[in-house]
Parts: sequence; C-alpha cells; structure tokens
Amino acid sequence: MTGLPKSVMIFEEGPREGFQVEKGPIATDDKVRLIDALSETGVKHIQVGSFVDPRRVPGMADVHDVVKRMKVVPGVEYSALWMNERGLRSALEYPQLSVDGKLRLYPSETFLKTNMGRTPEQHAQKNVELIALCRNLNVPVKQASLSSAFGCNFQGDISTDLLVRLVQDTLELTRANGVELDELIVTDTMAWATPEAVRHVVGIMQEKFPTLEIRLHLHDTRGLGLANAYAGLLMGVRLFDSSVAGLGGCPFAKHKGAAGNICTEDFVLMCEEMGIATGINLEAMLAAASIAEEVVGHAVPGHTVKAGSLSEIRARAKAATGR
Amino acid sequence: MTGLPKSVMIFEEGPREGFQVEKGPIATDDKVRLIDALSETGVKHIQVGSFVDPRRVPGMADVHDVVKRMKVVPGVEYSALWMNERGLRSALEYPQLSVDGKLRLYPSETFLKTNMGRTPEQHAQKNVELIALCRNLNVPVKQASLSSAFGCNFQGDISTDLLVRLVQDTLELTRANGVELDELIVTDTMAWATPEAVRHVVGIMQEKFPTLEIRLHLHDTRGLGLANAYAGLLMGVRLFDSSVAGLGGCPFAKHKGAAGNICTEDFVLMCEEMGIATGINLEAMLAAASIAEEVVGHAVPGHTVKAGSLSEIRARAKAATGR
Repeated sequence: MTGLPKSVMIFEEGPREGFQVEKGPIATDDKVRLIDALSETGVKHIQVGSFVDPRRVPGMADVHDVVKRMKVVPGVEYSALWMNERGLRSALEYPQLSVDGKLRLYPSETFLKTNMGRTPEQHAQKNVELIALCRNLNVPVKQASLSSAFGCNFQGDISTDLLVRLVQDTLELTRANGVELDELIVTDTMAWATPEAVRHVVGIMQEKFPTLEIRLHLHDTRGLGLANAYAGLLMGVRLFDSSVAGLGGCPFAKHKGAAGNICTEDFVLMCEEMGIATGINLEAMLAAASIAEEVVGHAVPGHTVKAGSLSEIRARAKAATGR
Repeated sequence: MTGLPKSVMIFEEGPREGFQVEKGPIATDDKVRLIDALSETGVKHIQVGSFVDPRRVPGMADVHDVVKRMKVVPGVEYSALWMNERGLRSALEYPQLSVDGKLRLYPSETFLKTNMGRTPEQHAQKNVELIALCRNLNVPVKQASLSSAFGCNFQGDISTDLLVRLVQDTLELTRANGVELDELIVTDTMAWATPEAVRHVVGIMQEKFPTLEIRLHLHDTRGLGLANAYAGLLMGVRLFDSSVAGLGGCPFAKHKGAAGNICTEDFVLMCEEMGIATGINLEAMLAAASIAEEVVGHAVPGHTVKAGSLSEIRARAKAATGR
C-alpha cells in the first residue's frame, strides 16, 4: 500500500493530442506559443506534433514549421509522433527532436483486423521491419506500447493472459532481432480502465516483466483518469503521459471517441499535494493551460485551470491567520 | 489494500446541489421530472431540496411545490436540507420526507468566525440547542458532519489532531445530551483533499471512533473527486454523497466556489466495473443525468453521460466477436 514513488516523470502530450483533434485551424504561432510556455514549466518531455499525412490529419500540416520555430530549452526533450518510414525520416531532419522507435502492440485482434487489416502475425512482421528500419537509420528502439490494455470497443474485455503472452512474444521477437526493450507503455486507449484494473494489470506486468519499466497512458473519457493514475502511483508507477488542460478531445463537445489524456496540471497538483515530486512548477503549468484554452478557443477539460491551485490560497490563509 | 467494500450506499444530492446554484430559474415541473427519474434508478436516498430563506436561495423558493408534486417511490428515502427551526418545521410538514438532525462541525475556527460570527464554544452551544429542538420535535440526531476536513480556504491546512479533538468533544457533548451519533460525514467542502489525505484522515477517524461509520462528501473542483472516492473505497468506506451529472456547480462556467460533488453516474460506473454493488441501474442513472443536463440547460461536469457506459459497447463487441 505504501508503494507511492518519491517522484514521477511526466510526458507532456498536449500539443500533439490537442492540435490533432481540434476542428478549428490553429495558427502555427499559437502552437509555438503553447510549446514555448510548456518549455518553461519544468516538464522534461514534450511531444510537439506528428509527422503524418496532412490529408488525414490536417491539424498537423504545419508540424515542420512548428518544430523549426519552437524555442529549444536545454534539458527538455522534444519528440514527435510518426507512423511510417516517411514520418520517421521527417522527424530525423530535426536535430532538436529526440527520435526513437516504439513497437505498437495490439492485444485486440479484432481492432488489428478491422482497423489495420492485419493478423497478429502480420503485425509482428511489421514490427520486425520497423526494428530493421530503425537499425538502418540509427534510431534506438526501447519501448513497446500496449494499446487498449484494459478493454477494447471492438473486442470487449482483454484478458491479462493475452497481454502477458503478447509482451512475452514481443520480448522474444525483439531479442531475436538484437533489441532490448526497457519500457512498456500501458495504454487505456478506449477508457475501459478502473483503478482496480490498473492495479491488477500493472501488478502482473511488473511481476512477469521486471526489466520493463511501466509507463501509463490514461484517458479521462469516463472521468476515471486521475483515479486510475492514483492506482498506478500506488503500484509505484513513475512514468505518466498527460496533456496540458486535458487537451486531446473536449468531452463537452461530444467528441465521443476522442476524450483527452489525464490533465497535466490536475495530475501535478495531485502529486505535489501528496508529496510526490514532479519537477514541474504548477503555477507555470497553469499559465500554459490558460494559453492552451485560449489557443483552442473553447472550454477545456482541466479543472485546476478554473479553480486555481492551493498554494496561493494556502499562503493567503497563512498570512491571515498568522500560523 | 484489499479493503474495498462489497457494496456502497449512494446519497444523491443532485437536486439540492444543482437547483441551489443554477442561475437560470428552473421550472418546478423540471425539478420534479428529474427527481422522479432519479427515483427510478435504484438509488435509495435523494435529497430533493432545501427549506431555506428564498431571498437568499431563490432557486429553492418552490421547494414546497417540488415536495408536494414529486412521486414517492416505496423504498426510496427523500430528504431535504434545513438550517434552522423554521426550516426544520417546514420539512416536518411533509410525511414523505425523512427528517433528522445533523450536527455541523467546523474545524476551521477562521471560517466559523468570519462566516458565522461564532467562537467554537458558541457553535457547540448552538449544537446543544439543536439537539434540544430535535428532541422536542421528535427528530432523531444521528449524524455529525465535519466541514472542510482536508483544508479550508480561510484557515489553510487542517490538522488531524484538531479533527480528532473536535469529534471527541462532540461525542462527549452529545452523550451528555442523551444523543448517540452513529455516522460521521467527512466533507471536503473546499476541495483540498487528495487520495492520500483521504486515506490518512479516514484511517484516523476509523481508528479513533470505531462506532461512527464514515460517509464521504467530496467535491470535484480540482478534478480529484473520483480519485479521492477510490481512496475512500480502499479504506472500506461504504457511504458516499454524490450528484447526478455532477450538478452543483459548473466549473466550465467559472463558478469557482461552487464546483459540484462527485458525479453519481461516473462513480456508479467506477464501482460497478470494479465489482462493487451500488444497487443503481447505470443506464437509468445516465437517463436521469441527461434530464439533468436538459433541465439546467448547459453542459454538465459528468463524463459518462457524454461517453456512454461500457455495457452496451461490451455487449456489441461480444456479439461481433462471438466470445
């Protein structure tokens, strides 16, 4: 029960998650403004966009300009999403980006088949090709992500046996291809997770794969995001993806399929108030969240950006009561 | 760590919390419609309104009509809030209401002084008078509520020593006045709680006051509501206040001081998905939440009312995969 980590590492995904789903065109300058504000918060990792087909994701059409114009702050790692060789080669054009290969694992065979037209064997072969590509381009491969680890809208509940087998197979496949993974991103893509499911799945992964550090990627679609994150903390998880202002989908706009990640500043507040260091200045992150709200032009899912943090209130109360 | 209860009892406060803070006048018929929908969800306790000064809380001016018109479903307990003898006598006019006395405890002396103009001693005296009044009117007194148990905007952090002393003193006072309390409502009035604080405070209260069952009243002002509720579940807490659709303040409207309780249907989903029985039909509660959204006329904080529950998705996936 006292498994809480002393500190956590937050991977900020707001710019990528947010700019990807927003309908209105967002000016490149505004995107850069948000990224630059995030760079000043103390967060150490920022995913700034995606190198993907602009016809499919118009919101990412200006990703080259965003990367060129953003201010690079020493000590901050900037990354971008890519899905194929073309995207990878684009990312590699920019020395300011940290580029590595991530193996995507799909426990849901139905999703694989329906949405990607592949059998599990064909997908494993794609991952072998990805490893070869990364080796040719000198790109490290250290992570695997487990999609829809808690349930899938197409396949339903996902058994932990299936998850274990898939990770086990992947570890064998990577070792056979000269790659040693060190991180497993457990993803609640479709918001099926509950705190108990997080404890269960994370516990099994930690037990079966002690060499893989767990990172949690949680969505707040059904309001359980921070409860699930807390369950992860109880299991000693130290790595979390999150999104400033909860960008990545505005549930208020009925974007059913696209509700955002857990909200960075709400998560920072929760951690810091519980004595878990985030390395992030909450007030600076709240300022970035206000910029995010301005930039997307509508109410955002984050709570603390409306309610305010406790530090100022605490200081005021202290001054008033003299305690 | 395995302290999860097998079932929880939910006290629905949406009608009272919601109608109290909404600016726009809500038609009495709409209020009744929401209460009637809630009565069909399986929830066993509904707080339908407040008998308070209509000049101070105009949204409650029609509470008499609401109580007269609502459909009384057997097995459901209906209650109303009251703050003084006049309100209590009004509530007692209605046999369809369950009426009891609640002692309000304020660990924050600053709040007591600033907002109520009383010293702790004067407030204790008020509670003695309340007990006498309830005895005269044959109204049971079983509960005490601990306001701002996790922190107060006026006083800052609240020490658990202070909480223990206050509850101890109250138990002595009630016993001396012939009253035996059996429930302690631990309230996060100003949204200072974190999951760790909930575990800490609840743990101490359980240890020091084993005859008092803990009820949690949590607000979601900073997005930590369900994480805090989960922490309560981990401590075996069985009683929770919550509010359909998260009524009680719309954070999106910058009602800074008035963010709602935890959202009933999101909490029901979390519990049921973790195998904790709520006695509530989630789909019926989602229907009530949709009515709530319609009635207040703006987006509500609840998530599942937008995203949908998992049962239908799960059934569809099952049918499609034949598993």
